[in-house]
Amino acid sequence: MSQRNTQVRMKRHPAGMVTPEDFEIAQAELPKLADGEALARVKYLSLDPYMRPMMDPVRSYVEPLKIGQVMPGGVVAEVVESRSADLPTGTLVTAALGWQTHGVVTKATIRGVVDPKLGPPSAALSVLGMTGVTAHYGLLELCKPKAGETVLVTAASGAVGSIAGQIAKIKGCRVVGVAGGPEKCRYVVEELGFDAYVDYKAPDFEAQLAAATPDYINVVFENVGGPVLDAVMMRVADHARVALCGNVSQYNSKEAYGFKGLRQVLMHRVTVYAFVIAEHRDYYPTALADLSVWLKEGKLKYKEDVADGLGSAPDAFIRMLTGGNLGKQLVRVS
Amino acid sequence: MSQRNTQVRMKRHPAGMVTPEDFEIAQAELPKLADGEALARVKYLSLDPYMRPMMDPVRSYVEPLKIGQVMPGGVVAEVVESRSADLPTGTLVTAALGWQTHGVVTKATIRGVVDPKLGPPSAALSVLGMTGVTAHYGLLELCKPKAGETVLVTAASGAVGSIAGQIAKIKGCRVVGVAGGPEKCRYVVEELGFDAYVDYKAPDFEAQLAAATPDYINVVFENVGGPVLDAVMMRVADHARVALCGNVSQYNSKEAYGFKGLRQVLMHRVTVYAFVIAEHRDYYPTALADLSVWLKEGKLKYKEDVADGLGSAPDAFIRMLTGGNLGKQLVRVS
Repeated sequence: MSQRNTQVRMKRHPAGMVTPEDFEIAQAELPKLADGEALARVKYLSLDPYMRPMMDPVRSYVEPLKIGQVMPGGVVAEVVESRSADLPTGTLVTAALGWQTHGVVTKATIRGVVDPKLGPPSAALSVLGMTGVTAHYGLLELCKPKAGETVLVTAASGAVGSIAGQIAKIKGCRVVGVAGGPEKCRYVVEELGFDAYVDYKAPDFEAQLAAATPDYINVVFENVGGPVLDAVMMRVADHARVALCGNVSQYNSKEAYGFKGLRQVLMHRVTVYAFVIAEHRDYYPTALADLSVWLKEGKLKYKEDVADGLGSAPDAFIRMLTGGNLGKQLVRVS
Repeated sequence: MSQRNTQVRMKRHPAGMVTPEDFEIAQAELPKLADGEALARVKYLSLDPYMRPMMDPVRSYVEPLKIGQVMPGGVVAEVVESRSADLPTGTLVTAALGWQTHGVVTKATIRGVVDPKLGPPSAALSVLGMTGVTAHYGLLELCKPKAGETVLVTAASGAVGSIAGQIAKIKGCRVVGVAGGPEKCRYVVEELGFDAYVDYKAPDFEAQLAAATPDYINVVFENVGGPVLDAVMMRVADHARVALCGNVSQYNSKEAYGFKGLRQVLMHRVTVYAFVIAEHRDYYPTALADLSVWLKEGKLKYKEDVADGLGSAPDAFIRMLTGGNLGKQLVRVS
């Protein structure tokens, strides 16, 4: 076990597109444990789009990150030293330790103990973790799709979108996935079982979208924003529901994008629900009960894109924000 | 009683800004009544922003108006000839007869019978009609403001906005009204009792807005869209609710306005509810019970801007869409 804690910190606020130079790798002392605390060594770090807006010096979900702060994030970590009877050495936990190799946890600060019977440890960050719960909450709790309705998912091959679309299929919906390029489009239809895909990079994107949504769209599970969302809004049905989960196409923009769909929201009496799953910890058990069963029954497929070593986190993060990955982006830290 | 039915029809789809030439006045025969029907002579016609998008040849709330169709709208009308025992001559009803002097009503097609004890007949189109119910539904049923929360109303001196803001005051909220020019701003604070105004025509509009919302905005009752809404969204609190009731600044635009506030919706986990009160007829009794009591108690003030004669409807409509009126826009038809 390393005697130092390696950290990735924000070196400066990105100016538009985030770059590797916006991060710095630094060493810190391992903390001394107090009673009730345990030291955990990070095994997997989850990389997620929400981290990008937190790097800007404006109000986002939370107070902006400060220069020199450790990048935030969920991890799976193993207790390697313990002064807590609840967290014996060897316990695998999920916690918000961020981009570092070690961190202190207590019974109160962990998100949960990883149950190895449910899946591999990394799944606690993807299909059986924040990613899966986000999809479940946004789709089922907020948008309440009915069987037979058309559900459209943007970033459909992405970590959250791929789960949201599969849940909609389980619930008997017609599911249309928007993804970029033939490989991702093939993936959502052939491997994930979506009913149709729309390639937003194709020159006939809008015609594809219209053809794929002959009865318009009842539910939009939305992750990207920008011109793709504008086009999607032209196809909403009356009383459509939109789960606004992300806006990844715009996180690296300096200027606010002008969303063209507000008239459509009004005219079709749409409800737009924005949410962040961190505020709905109480919902985790409900979602995980479903997700673990569906996973066991083979109804949910997921992919992980695993980068190696904490030092690879900045590049992997940038790649994810620009759509260069396929599936949930993780970093294997130890 | 005139032996002809005078109508205002849509002569052509407006090209951007609606003009008087987009309408034509025409005569039609008075209809022959069947059993159960009554002929009603229109006394007051309600002019409302929602009529404008219906004139465009694209999907709006409903199928677009066709060239030559009578302009739609709510009216107060008096039964002048009847073959319905339920609607004796002299009965005052509200109905969706549109821009014409006469129309056929039945017990099933009227919206209600006007109760003269509650207020003057015209009030059945304003504070005790669609206008008041829209304000009540959007604010209370959708946004559920709590006492002490900050409620911001756009088009605050307008027919709906003025009622929405007063209801928010009744519910113990801090109410900020956005209006254009000193006269309207003075009206919402001094006559309607709002806590603060923001003049969107003032050069320091954004500074006024920030000063008027020191604790940010919990509920937005939104009628206008455009740059005003962009600025408002920069001041939303976490978990704000937006009742999207209208978009009047954009109804005469050829190009969709680019709404800059979508990032704010996401980052502050805002819910946006778009609605049209015509779909919530069941809600009328609930709202009218409150509104009639508040009116009687002197807690609700309202203004009507009454144009004279059906022929004045196009000009009055255009004036209303450009903010030239103060209060509910009506036409006295007979």
